[in-house]
Amino acid sequence: MRVVVPFAANDPKTRLASVLDPEERRAFSRAMLGDVLEAVREAGGEPELLATAPLDADVPMTVDDRPLTEAVNAALEPETAVVMADLPLATPEAIEALFDASREVVLAPGRGGGTNALLSRQPGFRVDYHDGSFLKHRERAGELGSVGVIDSHRLATDIDEPADLVELLIHGEGRAADWLRDAGFELVRRESRLAIGRE
Amino acid sequence: MRVVVPFAANDPKTRLASVLDPEERRAFSRAMLGDVLEAVREAGGEPELLATAPLDADVPMTVDDRPLTEAVNAALEPETAVVMADLPLATPEAIEALFDASREVVLAPGRGGGTNALLSRQPGFRVDYHDGSFLKHRERAGELGSVGVIDSHRLATDIDEPADLVELLIHGEGRAADWLRDAGFELVRRESRLAIGRE
Repeated sequence: MRVVVPFAANDPKTRLASVLDPEERRAFSRAMLGDVLEAVREAGGEPELLATAPLDADVPMTVDDRPLTEAVNAALEPETAVVMADLPLATPEAIEALFDASREVVLAPGRGGGTNALLSRQPGFRVDYHDGSFLKHRERAGELGSVGVIDSHRLATDIDEPADLVELLIHGEGRAADWLRDAGFELVRRESRLAIGRE
Repeated sequence: MRVVVPFAANDPKTRLASVLDPEERRAFSRAMLGDVLEAVREAGGEPELLATAPLDADVPMTVDDRPLTEAVNAALEPETAVVMADLPLATPEAIEALFDASREVVLAPGRGGGTNALLSRQPGFRVDYHDGSFLKHRERAGELGSVGVIDSHRLATDIDEPADLVELLIHGEGRAADWLRDAGFELVRRESRLAIGRE
């Protein structure tokens, strides 16, 4: 399965700016990308980077500096999956579930209503990542044919904000979790949920 | 499968007090409980309520006003599942995955490090719901035998805070989602994630 992985090469993860400086955010986003590429490969997928600027990586790459929606639609052919680069908790099993669902369009929602991974076998399907894309994608795909939804906490957990780092420290075992722990982050207990602290 | 469902009958869901008054929180928590009981039954489970005070419900009930950890441990026998009552997105499929995992202890983590559902076939296993229970449960269970972890966004989504209501409005189709919509809540778009508004 061809798997397009969009990646913002310049100034990534701005919503983590309160806890990571620009260089740290670049390194951390590369670590997350490494985790995603490994999970995709272990699931039997063939990843292709769709980057906003050239970067050094051992994976086929298209550079497209247009906004995400336009760039993904230009790359979208039938039998293409799109997996976001900020899913360091993605497992091969969860990606396989995306590949194996026998529907024309398969969606893995992100927390907050985004679409963290999708697979399209439907030539007419187009993405629109603005403003709660999951509901729009589900509606559009339903008009075109069959739709499947993957129920995965790991695929639902895109790392955008400091609160998301908690999930990575709880469940992560890959490059991004290691990077975060090496950078001094650790779990602290606050009320009944865990939060993050930094040494 | 015997499934214990703990339920706080008095002043439930205090962290929703900024958006729901006490009577609304009682009604909403009962609607969530109804969704959970239905999903458990459809998965082939036999639910038993473990309530802090008597309430009117068509399900076997134990009343135990001790804190959650003590009450659950008193109810825990081998071949028992414990499913929280604030999981209105729980599907029969996700509950079945919990039942079907062939491990001595099976855990479904909640966002933020809690344990939203578990199954124990291990006589020595005891719960401790304080402060990031998932990591503690996984460690304890691992010392006793085999451990499985269920990867489910629906089971990970316990409804504690206003931000959690977003997930219910996006994905919910049961009593609790209906209750919330009837109470005037709707999705509003804020940055790239969805939020809630009330008419």
